[in-house]
Amino acid sequence: MDVNELLPKSETLRLREKLIGPSCKLFFRADPLKIVSGKGQYMFNEKGEKYLDCINNVTHVGHGHPKIADVASRQLRVLNTNSRFLNDNLVVYAEKLTSLLPPPLSVCFFVNSGSEANDLALRLARTHTKAKDVIVMDHGYHGHVISLIDISPYKFNHKGGEGKPDWVHIAPVPDIYRGKYTDKDYSMEELTDLYTDEIKKIVDENVANGKGTSCFIAESLQSCGGQIILPPNYLRKAYKYVRDAGGVCIADEVQVGFGRVGTHWWGFQLQGDDVCPDIVTMGKPMGNGFPIAAVITTKEIADSFGATGMEYFNTYGGNPLSCAIGNAVLDIIVEEKLMENAVVVGASLLKSLAVLKEKYHIIGDIRGVGMFIGIDLVKDRESREPATSEAQHIISRMKEEYILFSADGPHRNVLKFKPPMVFSLQDADHLITILDTIFQEIESVNV
Amino acid sequence: MDVNELLPKSETLRLREKLIGPSCKLFFRADPLKIVSGKGQYMFNEKGEKYLDCINNVTHVGHGHPKIADVASRQLRVLNTNSRFLNDNLVVYAEKLTSLLPPPLSVCFFVNSGSEANDLALRLARTHTKAKDVIVMDHGYHGHVISLIDISPYKFNHKGGEGKPDWVHIAPVPDIYRGKYTDKDYSMEELTDLYTDEIKKIVDENVANGKGTSCFIAESLQSCGGQIILPPNYLRKAYKYVRDAGGVCIADEVQVGFGRVGTHWWGFQLQGDDVCPDIVTMGKPMGNGFPIAAVITTKEIADSFGATGMEYFNTYGGNPLSCAIGNAVLDIIVEEKLMENAVVVGASLLKSLAVLKEKYHIIGDIRGVGMFIGIDLVKDRESREPATSEAQHIISRMKEEYILFSADGPHRNVLKFKPPMVFSLQDADHLITILDTIFQEIESVNV
Repeated sequence: MDVNELLPKSETLRLREKLIGPSCKLFFRADPLKIVSGKGQYMFNEKGEKYLDCINNVTHVGHGHPKIADVASRQLRVLNTNSRFLNDNLVVYAEKLTSLLPPPLSVCFFVNSGSEANDLALRLARTHTKAKDVIVMDHGYHGHVISLIDISPYKFNHKGGEGKPDWVHIAPVPDIYRGKYTDKDYSMEELTDLYTDEIKKIVDENVANGKGTSCFIAESLQSCGGQIILPPNYLRKAYKYVRDAGGVCIADEVQVGFGRVGTHWWGFQLQGDDVCPDIVTMGKPMGNGFPIAAVITTKEIADSFGATGMEYFNTYGGNPLSCAIGNAVLDIIVEEKLMENAVVVGASLLKSLAVLKEKYHIIGDIRGVGMFIGIDLVKDRESREPATSEAQHIISRMKEEYILFSADGPHRNVLKFKPPMVFSLQDADHLITILDTIFQEIESVNV
Repeated sequence: MDVNELLPKSETLRLREKLIGPSCKLFFRADPLKIVSGKGQYMFNEKGEKYLDCINNVTHVGHGHPKIADVASRQLRVLNTNSRFLNDNLVVYAEKLTSLLPPPLSVCFFVNSGSEANDLALRLARTHTKAKDVIVMDHGYHGHVISLIDISPYKFNHKGGEGKPDWVHIAPVPDIYRGKYTDKDYSMEELTDLYTDEIKKIVDENVANGKGTSCFIAESLQSCGGQIILPPNYLRKAYKYVRDAGGVCIADEVQVGFGRVGTHWWGFQLQGDDVCPDIVTMGKPMGNGFPIAAVITTKEIADSFGATGMEYFNTYGGNPLSCAIGNAVLDIIVEEKLMENAVVVGASLLKSLAVLKEKYHIIGDIRGVGMFIGIDLVKDRESREPATSEAQHIISRMKEEYILFSADGPHRNVLKFKPPMVFSLQDADHLITILDTIFQEIESVNV
């Protein structure tokens, strides 16, 4: 057995089925993977077999990074307590984080997960605006707590969901390939207008119905919804309509922040230097797998929240350990030039995927930026009918080739690339070679 | 400057005020403490001054425990990924945890905080019972997310709170010293009946109004509400009434679990071996400050939740790192005999406090078990009028004596003792000596 394995795989699986809630799903349910260790962009099973990891967007600076281990070890020996005491780690980290955002975003709340962050963002928005209604993007996902399932169409409109609460309003996702309006019928400029007009329609209806709009919350690039890149000017226009109606704008950067897009630290920045949300939430990659998340907002909104007099206390949030680790992650991103790497590797992949698209009809659309890429698979390029079962087959075949990939989006037909940021050009070449082989297999069967 | 200090205290404070939301409060606001390191039951400020910590119920096995640092360091080098892969740490920890609970509590969900745990418990209860209404105890506190402020009178009935939602029903807390019914007028047996009859009244009203009862949630010992010990048979009777009406019973052990009571692992076990909730939530001390929490329930309830088909995915929950640390905490509790220590130290303190009560009229009531003790301060023993300002004065005086203490309860007059479990007999003697001095000062002024 591997030195890091405590039980035979069959026993691990038996105990998992007995002891862990059945709602907690395994990848590759029919033949789940047991992972015992990881290094950089690779994960290893109990037999020592090496998998190339294209899906772990949490392990941002790579699996098993020694600097994170060193920082945690040192801080755990020194101190880990709550944020009701003054401690330097908290303020040093808050200062560094806010320096990476436009100046109005200057006040931090530290929490433990993206779900806690979005829940708090919702409270901030409601307290500040004194309104309740929320505008969300279709297929959006914002977290697993009760308040966020309520605002996540990815949850409430799917299996086990209870549908949309009446205070939630769904704007169509600006998916220009298979959304309500597409590039088949409209220019990019028209698409931006059509999609943002849908936001305007909602805020106007809220006004007409005597209701305010507390906020518009959107992932800066939609992930679970199918790796969607917002069209140019989308946020600029959407934010204006929302603000004109008294609402605040929340950028959910939980999945895509911290330099994943390569050219910028945050996804919303792709929309232009003048585009600035009122609240940003961040999480997943923030601690490289250590539970940290944050809400960063303006002084005005933080002051409105403070003015209620209700204390906000988060037991673990902003403790010296999590801040030390968050700080180390920021340092590593810079020291190891991971954003620069994302630019180079992302561009290379998009170029190679464009070549594959020429060869294989199953590839309907390729979209992405940096280490965030989606491949929308179709049965037919004209109808754009989603190739759902083919996507599942490809994922399984890639697993056989020791590459971990996943598919998502409303039709589960979008291959989703969001690897650790240390993913290399060599890895990209290997990935393309394997994809080429598998697409070839599929097309030869279908001929 | 201390080797662990990065900034002068004035600068830390300035940055804190600038960068952290004003809703996040500091202890001792007028003159906050800067803490740079900790060891066991002690914390050290930037001048190296040593404080005896009577309030950190999270740092359960003590500040800076080397074993936790070693385990974290090793696991961070090996692997930290989400629970969609099989991993031994998860099942080994789940097996150990469930072995500490009555057999029906056999299925685990791992999350990052007590708030995430109680939010999930609420979802489980509602899904299982198909009912929405919730019974809570007055002054109860269950967490900071939106769904839990809704069920926490400690929040919704206080500053900035928006009052009780109509689906929440408040049962009076069985505080036999200053609750709705007290030991002035009734025997213990009568008190249990009176307080549990209030639960019965609520479930009956729900039935009469055509509404079900999804759950009754209660801290097994109420902490923020004023260190309340439930009277004998309270949970046995309350649970029966709730279950007879189709509801499930949730024991919130977030603040008091993991052996704090000394004789048992969980607070609810103080009520008898046959008393078993349907759902238990745990958090704070679980990872000694590392963000871990859990919901443990019955197979039936977990299966109801699974049957909806909605996946429950918690990014960090149950990852190999948090499980390794949780496991180490359990080992340390046993190896260092911390529950045995809680029994001995708690008994000694209660005995010494009883002697102080003979001497000082300000002590109205002393109650506690193990490392969970409350001292209810009064202006007058007959009227039991709460000595709120005196409690605040005592806290400040103790800080001057390098002892960290806090006051809580609806009147903020209950001194709250809930230290790291390594608190020693010698610490207890020192604490009593200082308390004696301060009570003496107060009484001499008042004479």
